[in-house]
Amino acid sequence: MSSNVVWHTHPVDQEVRSEQKSQRPLVIWFTGLSASGKSTIAGALEQILTRQNYHTYLLDGDNVRHGLNNDLGFSHEDRQENIRRVGEVAKLMADAGLIALAAFISPFRDDRRLVREILPEGQFIEVFVDAPLTVCQERDPKGLYAKAVRGEIKQFTGIDSPYEIPEKPEVHIRAGEVSVAEAVNQLLSYLHEIGALQAGYEPVALEA
Amino acid sequence: MSSNVVWHTHPVDQEVRSEQKSQRPLVIWFTGLSASGKSTIAGALEQILTRQNYHTYLLDGDNVRHGLNNDLGFSHEDRQENIRRVGEVAKLMADAGLIALAAFISPFRDDRRLVREILPEGQFIEVFVDAPLTVCQERDPKGLYAKAVRGEIKQFTGIDSPYEIPEKPEVHIRAGEVSVAEAVNQLLSYLHEIGALQAGYEPVALEA
Repeated sequence: MSSNVVWHTHPVDQEVRSEQKSQRPLVIWFTGLSASGKSTIAGALEQILTRQNYHTYLLDGDNVRHGLNNDLGFSHEDRQENIRRVGEVAKLMADAGLIALAAFISPFRDDRRLVREILPEGQFIEVFVDAPLTVCQERDPKGLYAKAVRGEIKQFTGIDSPYEIPEKPEVHIRAGEVSVAEAVNQLLSYLHEIGALQAGYEPVALEA
Repeated sequence: MSSNVVWHTHPVDQEVRSEQKSQRPLVIWFTGLSASGKSTIAGALEQILTRQNYHTYLLDGDNVRHGLNNDLGFSHEDRQENIRRVGEVAKLMADAGLIALAAFISPFRDDRRLVREILPEGQFIEVFVDAPLTVCQERDPKGLYAKAVRGEIKQFTGIDSPYEIPEKPEVHIRAGEVSVAEAVNQLLSYLHEIGALQAGYEPVALEA
């Protein structure tokens, strides 16, 4: 069984996977109020990155709440645990060499800080999707704000539970003022600036 | 915000990611006694696949127990929850287009069945790493069997907790009789047989 030794001396690690994919592994973490545009912007960014042959994965309520976190409710403890697990999965995704995108309200600074701290230096990018509460309430695509105002949903962020604004997000998107296309270009520009995109990057011409 | 519509109509899904990586997403699940060789064989397979430019990720106790599942102990319920979460993460990895490898004792049929059931048809491959208990006890690299026999560890699989043998594993490796290299070639051969490897595959010449 001497071949064991050979195997163990060349493990496949983040560096190998990162080189294979010609990209810097990252966790791009979108935080903001419900209906601020987190998932839309994250999904649009993912699409553009994938077209340019980056390897990505988008974590959001849809693929996490129905599976991994289907045992969690919406109490304060459960919301904390929800974010903790998503952070750990995003870390595994980055360890796999991927650019992981995560779109969660994640209203508490401490929860977001914990995710930043488990990641290697420079691999966590906090994106504050900043839309005024009034704008989000007006959009209210799922009628959640209306229910929260009527008291049918408790501890709803922005209504009867606080949203703690990021103090030093890597990217601050004024989502009430810019289009999705502009938000994506702001993100691409930032990623380019920090050297996370290959040379030759140009802002994307976006469909009207 | 009409561009929203454009974004949402072309989501990046498993099919897109699978095409990008030119591979079939899979979960290759290694089950067997402690010290049967699961992690060694899984790590060796991952190395070979990565050299052949497949995109992989290996989940095992090392990267899961210290992070995502660091809140879980070794009670029956916690071990079930450990496997449930690993299964969900492996599913997300496969959804990301990766070949996910998972190496866990996972002694209970029901727990393994649940993982199979959450995955799309044909994306779960159960690998039974079958080494006789006596062989595993003799290897005992971490001294765990010795501790279990002395009663210092409770509910240790093979000693005072059962291992439920897979009834129809996709691959059955007789790990007491074959080398790591032979086990890897058995797995590559199976993957080739089901069309999960590109044409041009050949068994790997392995270092002595």
